[in-house]
Amino acid sequence: MGSQGFRYSRRVQFSETDLAGIAHFSAYFRFMEEAEHALWRAAGLSIGAAEKTGGWPRVAAAFDYKRPLRFEEEFEVTVCIAELTRRSIRYAFTVTSGGALVGTGTMTAVCTKKEDGQLRAIDLPAEVVERLQAAAGCRASAE
Amino acid sequence: MGSQGFRYSRRVQFSETDLAGIAHFSAYFRFMEEAEHALWRAAGLSIGAAEKTGGWPRVAAAFDYKRPLRFEEEFEVTVCIAELTRRSIRYAFTVTSGGALVGTGTMTAVCTKKEDGQLRAIDLPAEVVERLQAAAGCRASAE
Amino acid sequence: MGSQGFRYSRRVQFSETDLAGIAHFSAYFRFMEEAEHALWRAAGLSIGAAEKTGGWPRVAAAFDYKRPLRFEEEFEVTVCIAELTRRSIRYAFTVTSGGALVGTGTMTAVCTKKEDGQLRAIDLPAEVVERLQAAAGCRASAE
Amino acid sequence: MGSQGFRYSRRVQFSETDLAGIAHFSAYFRFMEEAEHALWRAAGLSIGAAEKTGGWPRVAAAFDYKRPLRFEEEFEVTVCIAELTRRSIRYAFTVTSGGALVGTGTMTAVCTKKEDGQLRAIDLPAEVVERLQAAAGCRASAE
Repeated sequence: MGSQGFRYSRRVQFSETDLAGIAHFSAYFRFMEEAEHALWRAAGLSIGAAEKTGGWPRVAAAFDYKRPLRFEEEFEVTVCIAELTRRSIRYAFTVTSGGALVGTGTMTAVCTKKEDGQLRAIDLPAEVVERLQAAAGCRASAE
Repeated sequence: MGSQGFRYSRRVQFSETDLAGIAHFSAYFRFMEEAEHALWRAAGLSIGAAEKTGGWPRVAAAFDYKRPLRFEEEFEVTVCIAELTRRSIRYAFTVTSGGALVGTGTMTAVCTKKEDGQLRAIDLPAEVVERLQAAAGCRASAE
Repeated sequence: MGSQGFRYSRRVQFSETDLAGIAHFSAYFRFMEEAEHALWRAAGLSIGAAEKTGGWPRVAAAFDYKRPLRFEEEFEVTVCIAELTRRSIRYAFTVTSGGALVGTGTMTAVCTKKEDGQLRAIDLPAEVVERLQAAAGCRASAE
Repeated sequence: MGSQGFRYSRRVQFSETDLAGIAHFSAYFRFMEEAEHALWRAAGLSIGAAEKTGGWPRVAAAFDYKRPLRFEEEFEVTVCIAELTRRSIRYAFTVTSGGALVGTGTMTAVCTKKEDGQLRAIDLPAEVVERLQAAAGCRASAE
């Protein structure tokens, strides 16, 4: 791994808080996805274009919460390519706020193609992998 | 108008509350849409099938809030067909909880068809209008 | 009105799209609120601090849709103080994308104070009104 | 484990779909939470009441996706108490649709008390654990 990954920042919005006064735990999965898509854009790609040709359905997502985020708090999501298989990418995410760890997560997406209305898993396009790793500034150990 | 409209009930979920401890004001637009779609199902229709052929994009939505809804509170959405034009339906909604008025809203949707990737407004299908009015138990004054 | 209002920009996120391939109509109410809160921050205020002392519940919200927003599309929300009563603020919003009108909306919030666990409407604090109008670069005609 | 767990059912709503035409992957975390809270209600409890005294912040959440859910599709969430530690509950969830497996997930929540504005982990109340296990119809192996 050469660097610290791609960084995406924003604030907690009011609609993302719950009655406990903190960002709802489901919001972190949207935070991770937003960082993933920002990485794709930084790589000169759009996962939306991919979506039209089949897309990248998630097969797994997880998050471990260390401390809560509050309304208007600025946070940073760092995303790395943690693992590549022939047909899937596993991203690893670290969320911080003011340098303090908020939590860590992972998300695994499979590359697919739409055939006769059905999604079929296909091999990862080499160029997409190369561009994402370059933009993330980190490489998966096993490729 | 013959009756009191179609009724849809459910509870406020935790993720729909905000740090003020009440259902977020944007949630009411999802409540209205859920009631609309439940009305379609009660009419033996699915707006999802319509969606594939062009769908019913909204052109206007509004809600007036009288009292808040809290976590786990049960509420009822009553939906009526308030107005019909050649190509649009305006629904009127009343939200109540335990008999008390929570608020009222409206939503206007246009009937469309997808042609060459573009949405084009088309005349309301007579059968859809007839079924929705029968299921809602109320008729628009001006048809 | 001195200027064109306060401007807030961002992109449509994947989770905000629906099966029709466009931003869900309820998302625009979150867009308006985000712009409102960014205006408060630009005015050196936080509506979250206000929230702890009672907050600003919405009494009305509406949006008129002109054209849809798609995934990753960048849009701009312009917010003005449209009307002031003794105890409420009505904001007016214009959403554009690449210069094209996406839609317009309004939102009315009441100033409240928490007393014995109940929200009671109170007079708008003069300083808050002054700061918001200065940050918005537009003044309500009737104050 | 004595039985098959507590069952919670509902449909996929339009606002929960994304441009890929399926329920957004983040929605499953709300589905799991809704099932958890329905279990609490079935046990004669409300996690909302608990929330006022400190609440049950999540420390971990994960979901593995097997097949997608579509608009208006009815699905069932089965929830069990999978593991108990002195201060935490780990729930296990299975989501099915028409008998077919949609995916499985877990969620771990810590019992807390609010002291001087801070959340402090406390021992699980024995009565809450007993009631939840009775309502779920399944017991954690290690208590």
